[in-house]
Amino acid sequence: MSLTIKLHITNNLNLKLGTIKKSAYTSYGTKIRHKPIYHSNPLISTVYKPTMHVDGSSSSSFSIKSSLIDPDGGALVDLVVPESERAKKKSEAEAMPKVRLTKVDIEWVHVISEGWASPLRGFMRESEYLQSLHFNCLRMKDGSVANMSLPIVLAIDDETKERIGSSPNVGLVGPDGDLVGILRSIEIYKHHKEERIARTWGTTAPGLPYVEEVISPAGNWLVGGDLEVLDPIKYNDGLDHYRLSPKQLRKEFDKRQADAVFAFQLRNPVHNGHALLMNDTRTRLLEMGYRNPILLLHPLGGFTKADDVPLDVRMEQHSKVLEDGVLDPETTIVAIFPSPMHYAGPTEVQWHAKARINAGANFYIVGRDPAGMGHPTEKRDLYDPDHGKKVLSMAPGLEKLNILPFKVAAYDTLEKKMAFFEPSRAKDFLFISGTKMRTYARNGENPPEGFMCPGGWKVLVNYYEGLQAEEASQQQAVLTT
Amino acid sequence: MSLTIKLHITNNLNLKLGTIKKSAYTSYGTKIRHKPIYHSNPLISTVYKPTMHVDGSSSSSFSIKSSLIDPDGGALVDLVVPESERAKKKSEAEAMPKVRLTKVDIEWVHVISEGWASPLRGFMRESEYLQSLHFNCLRMKDGSVANMSLPIVLAIDDETKERIGSSPNVGLVGPDGDLVGILRSIEIYKHHKEERIARTWGTTAPGLPYVEEVISPAGNWLVGGDLEVLDPIKYNDGLDHYRLSPKQLRKEFDKRQADAVFAFQLRNPVHNGHALLMNDTRTRLLEMGYRNPILLLHPLGGFTKADDVPLDVRMEQHSKVLEDGVLDPETTIVAIFPSPMHYAGPTEVQWHAKARINAGANFYIVGRDPAGMGHPTEKRDLYDPDHGKKVLSMAPGLEKLNILPFKVAAYDTLEKKMAFFEPSRAKDFLFISGTKMRTYARNGENPPEGFMCPGGWKVLVNYYEGLQAEEASQQQAVLTT
Repeated sequence: MSLTIKLHITNNLNLKLGTIKKSAYTSYGTKIRHKPIYHSNPLISTVYKPTMHVDGSSSSSFSIKSSLIDPDGGALVDLVVPESERAKKKSEAEAMPKVRLTKVDIEWVHVISEGWASPLRGFMRESEYLQSLHFNCLRMKDGSVANMSLPIVLAIDDETKERIGSSPNVGLVGPDGDLVGILRSIEIYKHHKEERIARTWGTTAPGLPYVEEVISPAGNWLVGGDLEVLDPIKYNDGLDHYRLSPKQLRKEFDKRQADAVFAFQLRNPVHNGHALLMNDTRTRLLEMGYRNPILLLHPLGGFTKADDVPLDVRMEQHSKVLEDGVLDPETTIVAIFPSPMHYAGPTEVQWHAKARINAGANFYIVGRDPAGMGHPTEKRDLYDPDHGKKVLSMAPGLEKLNILPFKVAAYDTLEKKMAFFEPSRAKDFLFISGTKMRTYARNGENPPEGFMCPGGWKVLVNYYEGLQAEEASQQQAVLTT
Repeated sequence: MSLTIKLHITNNLNLKLGTIKKSAYTSYGTKIRHKPIYHSNPLISTVYKPTMHVDGSSSSSFSIKSSLIDPDGGALVDLVVPESERAKKKSEAEAMPKVRLTKVDIEWVHVISEGWASPLRGFMRESEYLQSLHFNCLRMKDGSVANMSLPIVLAIDDETKERIGSSPNVGLVGPDGDLVGILRSIEIYKHHKEERIARTWGTTAPGLPYVEEVISPAGNWLVGGDLEVLDPIKYNDGLDHYRLSPKQLRKEFDKRQADAVFAFQLRNPVHNGHALLMNDTRTRLLEMGYRNPILLLHPLGGFTKADDVPLDVRMEQHSKVLEDGVLDPETTIVAIFPSPMHYAGPTEVQWHAKARINAGANFYIVGRDPAGMGHPTEKRDLYDPDHGKKVLSMAPGLEKLNILPFKVAAYDTLEKKMAFFEPSRAKDFLFISGTKMRTYARNGENPPEGFMCPGGWKVLVNYYEGLQAEEASQQQAVLTT
């Protein structure tokens, strides 16, 4: 038995609420919406409730812990140059040979600079690349192992390699020509694309989104080195206040006196099945004896494939889910995970989990076929739907993370709500796939009552209506030309 | 300064010199030669020379060590059923559903049963398979890690799966229908071939020999379980006396009082460049302070691609190299490594090294592009020639093995002998590729003097002459039909 008290806390995270301007970093084939969706991160105005125990002690008397789980390598990597040194480093960088970054490169710069990939301190050199590709982990100097399942690499073409010559350092410039950072003590090595793709995806079939968007057009060389970022990466898309760094998240968890943080990675709208799962996880953690488990609802914010719902729409949808009370804002933090998406199934889910360790989450929820997709050329899932959670549970360097397997939720046609699937009465359950959900939304139909909160659903309907209107006007334009 | 004494030792390994009979397990597209090449293993009649030290003590006073390096998992796996239990187990196996093995499956049964793959105790279950595929290593119960880069799996087809039903155990029968072993507490799981190939080879290009010979024709299911082998695997090809198990090799190293064992994996004839390297390695080990380094010349004996020189010819060639004194029989053990060949480059070289740990070798010589081959569809090496040794040096579970990188040897046209390549006078060196060597041998030409010992060269010339005669008579047969 426990009593709860509510305390209001003031958020002192120094979040800069960016103004919206066109940025080259944010869109992949979808138009940027110039109207900000909303400006405040739910975590800023929220309350938290430490538990009052029967013995009269309160969780708020806990000493603030720096973390619930150590970052990989022991210390969180932070590669943003201190303000006092920026001017000097910038003029230094001006004199270096330049490497022009793509939008996705910038997302990786962001990821590396904030320590999501700790202990990685820059784009991979060949020894890190090979370890990642063959072993999905890096061996540290002390003999310990850090998980690192995706090669985080920077490709350059022959001409850039030529231009770099024997320079030990290069300046990194964004797609618009702005100076972004420095890569020091560089190493240039061959970009064996076929091998990288085969070992990362377990297939070389044409049609893998990240391969087509990022790898195929990239150069035949990779350049690794130690990264320094001259200014924190911002996207100026109205969502930067959601882009909390691992350091900011860890601070926030401590401030809320979380004694467990469970991360939920997603790249889709939240329906009531997800919510059921997250709320159920919280209940299970309370039953396990945790007194203040915090949910990190952590949508992926980098590159996604063209038919995924765009980030801004998803963020608006997520905010409605909290507004409608489907998830409890008091025990939920919504933030953006800045990584691009590989759709590399069991290989990628390790990255998703590992990055959340660095952000301070000590529990990770893993679902069916995480980071999976349909096979690009065959009528089947690309990955065995069970492999993701199996691989995750055995992955080197993830031993310290608690893996929480996803229970399957589906629409219970008897109870008229999302519920955990019961095989004994399978016929009562309706599985609503992403494709089916899109079909409902596109056609302006409502999904079964209880599938998603009405506010969240409206966001999706608006998005698909806008998309259809846009497509219609494009077709019109084509016809009239 | 040191004095050396020679001691004759009697070999008490209980080697059965098999009689030659036709066996289904030995050939891959090449005809079996029914004439035995030679019957005695050089190690049987050899001498060894422990070093007498200046202080008068002798190496022969060393206490016999059980090993120089622990087998993976701490104990060498031995899955051959003791003779006293065989009759009972055989009748038990008779009653089980049967799985019919291919020639290559038998080679793997051999490999597993003798502990080359320690700590693996049978064909992989899914958790081992996934760890092998994704991490190239297995996590042990005590948290330690054993290298395991190749999936060692047994494929079955739908019909066999159906026949097994829910039986927990299956009997394994050889290609000729003879009962070979038992697989207990089995687990059947999907054989995702494309993913297995992509993650093992880093390509899915058509034309990979092991894929075409073994994986493509195999069933869509894998069956894992604990293996018991009813009789030691024999091939009856006149070479079984060369097939020393890891246990036998470890005993022999101890008997010779080796204080270092350096393994040389090969699947090609030995030329004087190889010999130079092996002799140089011995010199380096002596300089490092070892007093009795033993060379394990360890040709691979399982499946190889059609244009590789067949095992019996290679064994005869190797024996000539020792007879001609190019390698010193006193400090060399020649034995057959029973594994099939994957030609999977950096992934496979780990297997080659790991298996030699289990055989008691604490040094491993690694060359340029180990286990590599040409890309099956492109005009280039399939693997970066440097990746093999780099991956090997970083591979989880191989930390205890000393990796000795190969120095490049080539034919020195000034000195008229094989010598270590000197980049400063590159023009004096002639690289004689396998293809070039074959061309010489096929055309009855001699390679440059000093390339290979005359006795060894004659073996190859005879082989290629026989092959040409066979091809000619086949063509004749086709023309007259």
